[in-house]
Amino acid sequence: MEEEIYDVGIIGGGPGGLTAALYCCRDQMKTILFEPMLMGGMVNEATLIENYPGFPTGINGYDLSSKIYDQAVSFGMKSEMAEVTAVKKTDNLFDVETTDNHFLCKTVIVATGSAKNKLNVPGEQELKGLGVSYCATCDAPFFRDKVIAVVGGGNTALMEAMHLAKFGSKVYLIHRRNEFRATKLVADRIAQEPKIETQLGYTVERIEGSEKVQDIVLVNKLDGSKKTLAVDAVFVAVGITPNSKCVEDLVHLSTDGSIITDVNMETSVPGVYAVGDVRTNSIKQVISACGDGATAAVSIKNKLS
Amino acid sequence: MEEEIYDVGIIGGGPGGLTAALYCCRDQMKTILFEPMLMGGMVNEATLIENYPGFPTGINGYDLSSKIYDQAVSFGMKSEMAEVTAVKKTDNLFDVETTDNHFLCKTVIVATGSAKNKLNVPGEQELKGLGVSYCATCDAPFFRDKVIAVVGGGNTALMEAMHLAKFGSKVYLIHRRNEFRATKLVADRIAQEPKIETQLGYTVERIEGSEKVQDIVLVNKLDGSKKTLAVDAVFVAVGITPNSKCVEDLVHLSTDGSIITDVNMETSVPGVYAVGDVRTNSIKQVISACGDGATAAVSIKNKLS
Repeated sequence: MEEEIYDVGIIGGGPGGLTAALYCCRDQMKTILFEPMLMGGMVNEATLIENYPGFPTGINGYDLSSKIYDQAVSFGMKSEMAEVTAVKKTDNLFDVETTDNHFLCKTVIVATGSAKNKLNVPGEQELKGLGVSYCATCDAPFFRDKVIAVVGGGNTALMEAMHLAKFGSKVYLIHRRNEFRATKLVADRIAQEPKIETQLGYTVERIEGSEKVQDIVLVNKLDGSKKTLAVDAVFVAVGITPNSKCVEDLVHLSTDGSIITDVNMETSVPGVYAVGDVRTNSIKQVISACGDGATAAVSIKNKLS
Repeated sequence: MEEEIYDVGIIGGGPGGLTAALYCCRDQMKTILFEPMLMGGMVNEATLIENYPGFPTGINGYDLSSKIYDQAVSFGMKSEMAEVTAVKKTDNLFDVETTDNHFLCKTVIVATGSAKNKLNVPGEQELKGLGVSYCATCDAPFFRDKVIAVVGGGNTALMEAMHLAKFGSKVYLIHRRNEFRATKLVADRIAQEPKIETQLGYTVERIEGSEKVQDIVLVNKLDGSKKTLAVDAVFVAVGITPNSKCVEDLVHLSTDGSIITDVNMETSVPGVYAVGDVRTNSIKQVISACGDGATAAVSIKNKLS
């Protein structure tokens, strides 16, 4: 029996992957989507998304991803609950390998997202969504006139601190080294912002609070002394890890591990696309991941037509 | 009195501009949006949008743009009902000129969309949305097993005809010249698709039907003879005109008049961005315009922080 060949294999069932599937299926392309866990991915953890256009009073992340999933299924989306371990190029097809099977696809869309790096300290996981956040663009407006801690020393951490200073009454910027890794321009701005107080040479020992964040305990790297700061929120900005492992031997990655694409979301390998948080330069928002997914799908439609 | 300075001036109140406004306002940037007509733009004309993620049973275009408008207003969006005539660069600001006023902005987002070129024949306007369409990606699934006419001879027209052949029972491809302007590769595929019948050297005289498209009347360019084809839909693909006039002296345009951007939606002039249908390479979908708008807003937030 001849092996089935799919027009499109989509790796990842978050908003970007589901939107790509919705477009591909509606466009009559033979599509299969791979997701090892619950459909929706990281967005399921968001209790309130205020900035996805079309929902004026906001929407819960799980509800939003369920709606997009239902929409893709209504156009005939087929999915496999499986983890993709590798994608290999054969003559003119791609062989998508899962833990116990493989699938032949004419094109592939990588929509695997990225993981925010954790501090791995007590209280972090327990208070996630209760004051602990990994996204200032998403959550800053929830902390107007509150005291906010930002942890990290790179450009992202410092820009998030500047941004949060527009909302909070005070922002502590905590970094384990004695100087920031961020560019001088950004560091200079931080020094001039009266609401920001830097805490250099400190690591986070734990985050405390019941029901919501109440304080953060810091340890001085030099002398081991401790101090406790009363805060309402802790924004963790200590880097991200793009989930690009399954294609790391296939396509060009940026130094941070994200997948480099052109404006049509095509990678260095023609026929392989990357959308959403896993691609270089993504703004890591649900709406942009969805836009990317549609763009990749339409690019593939034009290629296969 | 000192003149007011805005962080962001957004030109155009379609989904891309409104999403940019939603993000900019929620991020505490001082924002003003210019729209001379009804908010929503071209999307208001869509009776049913099936592929905007989050609405599994589809949504009316006017309803969708109203929701995005309400959402932007809830974050404090300020708008001017005015047409922007030009954008000029001053020392380190942009001067946005309207028909009877002007506004100083640190950054500008152009979200003016594009106009689909019309055939300008009787019946076209009257039967728009009743079988006359300008977007195969949007409307193809509504014409399963129907007879479809496609008018045009460029790459887009031929690729739309190939795509529509997956849905319709028959596709007439009508072009006024005796050969297609499309690349040979695409034209060769058309010749091999049994469902497609080409009608070369014919112009459209009129589209007929009451309540819905019933037939299309063609005129032979050589001998003036006429013929009538019974069809259920007419897809017009005779080019688009990006609405880039207000910045044509400011930023680099592509040969088709669209605005060239990088992956952050920034144009050749730092601080000026373009999103949605007016930018080069846009897939011209609501979801991608919204993604573009968010991307420009976050880029500006990082620039101004």
